[in-house]
Amino acid sequence: MSPTITAFKSSPDRGRGLARDMRVRWAFEEVGQAYDVRLVTFPEMKEPAHLARHPFGQIPTYEDGDLGIFESGAIVFHIAERHAGLLPEDANARARAITWMFAALSTVEPPIVERSMATLVERDKSWYEARMPILEGRVRVRLGELSHRLGEADWLDGGFSAGDLMMVSVLQRLGGSGLVEEHPNLSAYIARAESRSAYRRAFDAQYAVFVAASGGG
Amino acid sequence: MSPTITAFKSSPDRGRGLARDMRVRWAFEEVGQAYDVRLVTFPEMKEPAHLARHPFGQIPTYEDGDLGIFESGAIVFHIAERHAGLLPEDANARARAITWMFAALSTVEPPIVERSMATLVERDKSWYEARMPILEGRVRVRLGELSHRLGEADWLDGGFSAGDLMMVSVLQRLGGSGLVEEHPNLSAYIARAESRSAYRRAFDAQYAVFVAASGGG
Repeated sequence: MSPTITAFKSSPDRGRGLARDMRVRWAFEEVGQAYDVRLVTFPEMKEPAHLARHPFGQIPTYEDGDLGIFESGAIVFHIAERHAGLLPEDANARARAITWMFAALSTVEPPIVERSMATLVERDKSWYEARMPILEGRVRVRLGELSHRLGEADWLDGGFSAGDLMMVSVLQRLGGSGLVEEHPNLSAYIARAESRSAYRRAFDAQYAVFVAASGGG
Repeated sequence: MSPTITAFKSSPDRGRGLARDMRVRWAFEEVGQAYDVRLVTFPEMKEPAHLARHPFGQIPTYEDGDLGIFESGAIVFHIAERHAGLLPEDANARARAITWMFAALSTVEPPIVERSMATLVERDKSWYEARMPILEGRVRVRLGELSHRLGEADWLDGGFSAGDLMMVSVLQRLGGSGLVEEHPNLSAYIARAESRSAYRRAFDAQYAVFVAASGGG
């Protein structure tokens, strides 16, 4: 039996790979672990059956035998712990890769999500135009620091790791903003990740769900 | 040699235990590991020596021999992996505790920090009064879901774990807002954590730094 994850039946990102199941699909592909997907609608995500799997009514979740967990970070880490390919064997390098996972989720993602949320839900507010430069400024600070640390390296710390997987997934949420493009090394970093065959397989799998949900190709 | 962490020389929270070194101090105390602290000023946090330790110029950092890491989540996890007391031995229970660490940082903390940031930096903006109910609404959603899941249990999943440590640390940032108090089980959960002797020792240690920095008692 393969592990089962949940994903949006109809993703609001229209198959662009920004929903958080993409991170988990990508991790599975990197380590060569097959998986099943159960699609859930937005109403289903707030029903007791799904809330038992995910107390905050979100996707993705992960079930494997007796184990049920949630949070993309926790699931990717769980996959990375059980299979070779996403965390270095050296103890110190492993700790640094885990550090980048937390940095992606705790330090880089929040201002990016805050900016995205504003574009979605505050666009018609009187304060939208005045606040956007503030939000973009917070994102720019983090991108500048990240670009400085990455420098000319291919990945954040040695070889590709779960830390890069999470960081790239977070940065992709800035697509279309033009903010990443202010740092050519970050653009190249994302492109490098997106050219991985595991990434392409994961992307195609989630895109197929979108195509099926929209009833065409 | 004990591990060395960094903390604010003069914490903006005035010793209330809300700076992120508190999470790490608490973890050290739970597992009985001695540690050293290097205090840094705000200007020092943006200098090359500190940026080499923490690319985003924040605290805490952690150094132990050849290893240097950052991010409170990563450091608490590193401590929890190396010592008994913060993660269950059972593999599935361990994965669930790690899930709660990520949930605290990725799902519960962002709307709480967004609300706190607004009270700090947008209080004089024309939109402050109109936005605050939106921000509080987002926090209320998460608190309601968390309260529902916790129910009458003492801790989020079995015994106290690093997941509870992170979740309580995140909820404490709502102190004074009245939002936690809408859920008596969450208030009791925080009080239960704060009554742990390890918590008290960690709190007292960071408070002593504040007292020393302010030149009095």
